[in-house]
Amino acid sequence: MESILPLLEAAQKAANSVRSLPDADKQALLRDLAVRLEADNALIIAENKKDLDQMPDSDPKKDRLLLNAARIQALADSLRDIAALPDPAGQTLSEKRLDNGLLVRKQSVPLGVVGVIYESRPNVTVDVAALCIRSGNACVLRGGTDAFHTNACLVGIIKAALQKAGVNPDAVQLLPTDRALIAELLTAVRYVDIIIPRGSQQLIDYVRANSRVPVIETGAGVCHTYVEKTADLEKAGRIVTNAKVSRPSVCNALDTVLVDRSVAGAFLPLLAPSLAAYNVEIFADTEAYDILAGASYPLLQHAQPDDFGREFLDFKCSVKVVGGADEALDHIRRYSSKHSEAIVSNDAALSERFLNEVDAAAVYVNASTRFTDGGVFGLGAEIGISTQKLHARGPFALEKLVTEKWVVYGDGQVR
Amino acid sequence: MESILPLLEAAQKAANSVRSLPDADKQALLRDLAVRLEADNALIIAENKKDLDQMPDSDPKKDRLLLNAARIQALADSLRDIAALPDPAGQTLSEKRLDNGLLVRKQSVPLGVVGVIYESRPNVTVDVAALCIRSGNACVLRGGTDAFHTNACLVGIIKAALQKAGVNPDAVQLLPTDRALIAELLTAVRYVDIIIPRGSQQLIDYVRANSRVPVIETGAGVCHTYVEKTADLEKAGRIVTNAKVSRPSVCNALDTVLVDRSVAGAFLPLLAPSLAAYNVEIFADTEAYDILAGASYPLLQHAQPDDFGREFLDFKCSVKVVGGADEALDHIRRYSSKHSEAIVSNDAALSERFLNEVDAAAVYVNASTRFTDGGVFGLGAEIGISTQKLHARGPFALEKLVTEKWVVYGDGQVR
Repeated sequence: MESILPLLEAAQKAANSVRSLPDADKQALLRDLAVRLEADNALIIAENKKDLDQMPDSDPKKDRLLLNAARIQALADSLRDIAALPDPAGQTLSEKRLDNGLLVRKQSVPLGVVGVIYESRPNVTVDVAALCIRSGNACVLRGGTDAFHTNACLVGIIKAALQKAGVNPDAVQLLPTDRALIAELLTAVRYVDIIIPRGSQQLIDYVRANSRVPVIETGAGVCHTYVEKTADLEKAGRIVTNAKVSRPSVCNALDTVLVDRSVAGAFLPLLAPSLAAYNVEIFADTEAYDILAGASYPLLQHAQPDDFGREFLDFKCSVKVVGGADEALDHIRRYSSKHSEAIVSNDAALSERFLNEVDAAAVYVNASTRFTDGGVFGLGAEIGISTQKLHARGPFALEKLVTEKWVVYGDGQVR
Repeated sequence: MESILPLLEAAQKAANSVRSLPDADKQALLRDLAVRLEADNALIIAENKKDLDQMPDSDPKKDRLLLNAARIQALADSLRDIAALPDPAGQTLSEKRLDNGLLVRKQSVPLGVVGVIYESRPNVTVDVAALCIRSGNACVLRGGTDAFHTNACLVGIIKAALQKAGVNPDAVQLLPTDRALIAELLTAVRYVDIIIPRGSQQLIDYVRANSRVPVIETGAGVCHTYVEKTADLEKAGRIVTNAKVSRPSVCNALDTVLVDRSVAGAFLPLLAPSLAAYNVEIFADTEAYDILAGASYPLLQHAQPDDFGREFLDFKCSVKVVGGADEALDHIRRYSSKHSEAIVSNDAALSERFLNEVDAAAVYVNASTRFTDGGVFGLGAEIGISTQKLHARGPFALEKLVTEKWVVYGDGQVR
């Protein structure tokens, strides 16, 4: 294919047919799609096998690519959950009548055309299409080459459901995976309203550096937990351990422990056995190293400068002893990726200061950073955790797939 | 200066001192600043003269650069207006207690550091600094070389007011105007949270193409008014004329008239004298040309293809005859810059269709597009009209100088 612009323009034209679909019809469409996924189970698995067969067994992405009956059922269940969420579009946000008689209403409307660039996981295809349909948006999906047969099969089923509901099937477009065409997508400001990269930091960095279409950045989480001198140290140990080990591969997992000097000698030996039980490798600054070495911590390294501000995504963390809240706050300001940050403290005033001063999407007192999640926060399925500040911050979910529009009713008014 | 990063980092550090200033103190600071501008009137005029003296009299920017007693008074009045607006930060947007006892609150918080790149107008310096202070943000200002003495003087006065209020004066930074340093500002993702370009389309395009910091685009307005076949043609004539001539140099002014074929023969001769009275030059498609030539319109040209989708910013417009609403909507979809679009019609159902289908920040029925304005819409002073869809759409004013933060209170909860 020489250009994807015709596909993008077709999506833009079709956006109107999904935007104008009544709310109940959008819900019915998603429920019908759930039934279709269940019914076409065998077809999906067969197409998925074509992709799996081309991937070596040694490839760590193979599990993410796999669709089986249970995973297809989970996708269908997720469609029914999304159908049950309230439509974020069509809400009146403000309304007033001006002295000259003009009625000025601000309302929420679908964004238009949502572009998503992602990697091997074919469930993203169904989740994104469903969230976009629910909120009245068209979408253009650029999945990974690895999953092309699976994605083509899924999008075929989605298009059939759109057609059945009387929606222009161009409202969900699967883009070819030719790498040269990504540049066209990233500069298609006339046709695409927002681009969301989902995947590796490398992908996100590439999109941010090259996109002229506005980007929602769902980036890395370099997350700190600060154990302050008034902390309940038993509680701090449980919070730090949970934040590190409960699911180390995700963005809200702990990367760095900061601990006040006055309690480091008591806290770190108390923490050591919990982390050692999960074979957590610790990169410690000199003071922490000496305390942990004294406690015979088995997997101990001297921290290098780049072990601070590092997202480990593994059973690894860095530890630093600080002189108090000012130093902790300064460290976080310097190294945080502005995702999730926590303090463990019994000093209410200091905790408030931490919550106010730390610049992150989610800030915690006396809890694990692992709670940063659209489902936990009551927003439903999320597309990612936004670490930027415009439009959406924290879990990026259905409620943010809208923009605003000023609608003005007059009777001949001029200025 | 070799690098502006130290200035940006200082602004980031100082952001906390303006963020944590109580609401009443922020208001008092702006009122104090108003008094200082009035008191330092002569100094400002003397510094402004240094800039004026370096600009040739023939330069059309000279009037925009000029500050006199009346304009300084207008700036002081604007400061008092901004002080009286409600603080958009510190609002609780949602709050819930989860089953595990966690209290999860979403609140509005200042963005952090706001970067603005602008050209000759020194009033921007005061307006932006005031809007940022009111909403608890630091700002970094990159004004034009032409206005450097004026801006340095104004920022000096602002810093004195900050100091007096106990705020770190680094919270408002004037950046050097060395062109080579712009690239540093546009890539300073660690220190700057948002960049707003104000000025020519060239400047905006450059910032959009080169910025890695998220940008609020306050772009061009290519605005259409569609005179539909059921329109009250007298009313349509007044609306079109007002939209074109009341202030042609601004972004909400009319650029293109679309008129239904069945009423073109009646409407265009009726419109002609009103536009001719303002010497409006018309670029007409063949059908409109023949009708207007028949009405002896004095300033008539055949439209070239690029006269559609063109922002005239002058006493000029293009006119096209269309076969009905579908053709009008398709034309607008293709050529609109998504700023302000209007229909003149007495068909309520068709008007609703227009309001729903036209993708623009502001859509009008039976009114002039000239009303798109922060002040008119009740938002107070605006930084510009956003033609993008993320974060802010339409007038970008005080209420949008905030982001969200999730604040979570726990008692040892783990996941």
